[in-house]
Amino acid sequence: MSIKNKKVAILATDGFEESELSSPKKALEEAGATAVIVSPKSGSIKSWKGTDWSKEYQVDMTLSEANADDFDALVLPGGVINPDQLRKDDKAISFVKSFFNGKTQRPVASICHGPLTLINADVVRGRRMTSYDSIRKDLENAGAKWMDEEVVCDQGLVTSRNPNDLDAFNSKLIEEIDEGRHKIV
Amino acid sequence: MSIKNKKVAILATDGFEESELSSPKKALEEAGATAVIVSPKSGSIKSWKGTDWSKEYQVDMTLSEANADDFDALVLPGGVINPDQLRKDDKAISFVKSFFNGKTQRPVASICHGPLTLINADVVRGRRMTSYDSIRKDLENAGAKWMDEEVVCDQGLVTSRNPNDLDAFNSKLIEEIDEGRHKIV
Repeated sequence: MSIKNKKVAILATDGFEESELSSPKKALEEAGATAVIVSPKSGSIKSWKGTDWSKEYQVDMTLSEANADDFDALVLPGGVINPDQLRKDDKAISFVKSFFNGKTQRPVASICHGPLTLINADVVRGRRMTSYDSIRKDLENAGAKWMDEEVVCDQGLVTSRNPNDLDAFNSKLIEEIDEGRHKIV
Repeated sequence: MSIKNKKVAILATDGFEESELSSPKKALEEAGATAVIVSPKSGSIKSWKGTDWSKEYQVDMTLSEANADDFDALVLPGGVINPDQLRKDDKAISFVKSFFNGKTQRPVASICHGPLTLINADVVRGRRMTSYDSIRKDLENAGAKWMDEEVVCDQGLVTSRNPNDLDAFNSKLIEEIDEGRHKIV
């Protein structure tokens, strides 16, 4: 499976769960893709690890500089604080929405609390998904069909529950990028 | 206005926004009430202040020890991390639900991200409420009528947006406790 020449945006801000960004980034790069950290902030963003702040990660491109059309896929890491910021950022919401636009969707993978941002982008209705269990009710109230599985894939939308699911999450993400755009049926 | 002899539970766990617990607690005590910090955890709980952890607060009573019927009102502080824990704790949810049981409701006041726990307690449908803006959509999807005001009061349910609203929040909370149980019409 080769995803060489594919360009993947990882959208995050302060408070993202460290492994939920670093692990998919590493897996994508090992598979030959380019992973680009996109953020509302310039400079660096601070990761979260379990119960406290962890190290800073360099932002490759701000949302103002990024054009969603340049990317083949999108990754939304979790962390409690990160999506709480992203979901109220208009630029972040329109960036996310554009991956779902039209009759086809580009692969979007989100883990843990990451899917909160998808609620604000109005893209979860009728979709099979999973997430961290605390936000299950918010996804169901937004119309998602929530399932308790390590990875759920619904026509290019890949979701997982928590960092323990990262291996399955990364594999499914790479598989979906290899398949390319998904026609919504 | 006197709320002497009234006993108020403040339900919180690690990651509550410090002022959203300390400020209502002080206001309740100055008005003559007893404020009791109730938590799933025993010992102490760690507060959050703006962008980092702050000092620890002594837990007065664990959820296992507490009987909701002993309290005249309930306060749910915010903080991003605190309600994310509480909302998936079965004991916390049944404690919250019991303030809404029957034909009357005891005053319940919640601020910022605190109302997330009310979503899991299934008590927001049809109620006029406010909250921190990031969770507006989750409250609306759960059936609440969300309003952008410093304090919203709907038949004993008092909600505010963020720490800047604390003066209005505390005054309305004390007024509602003074009025006592609210008949749901």
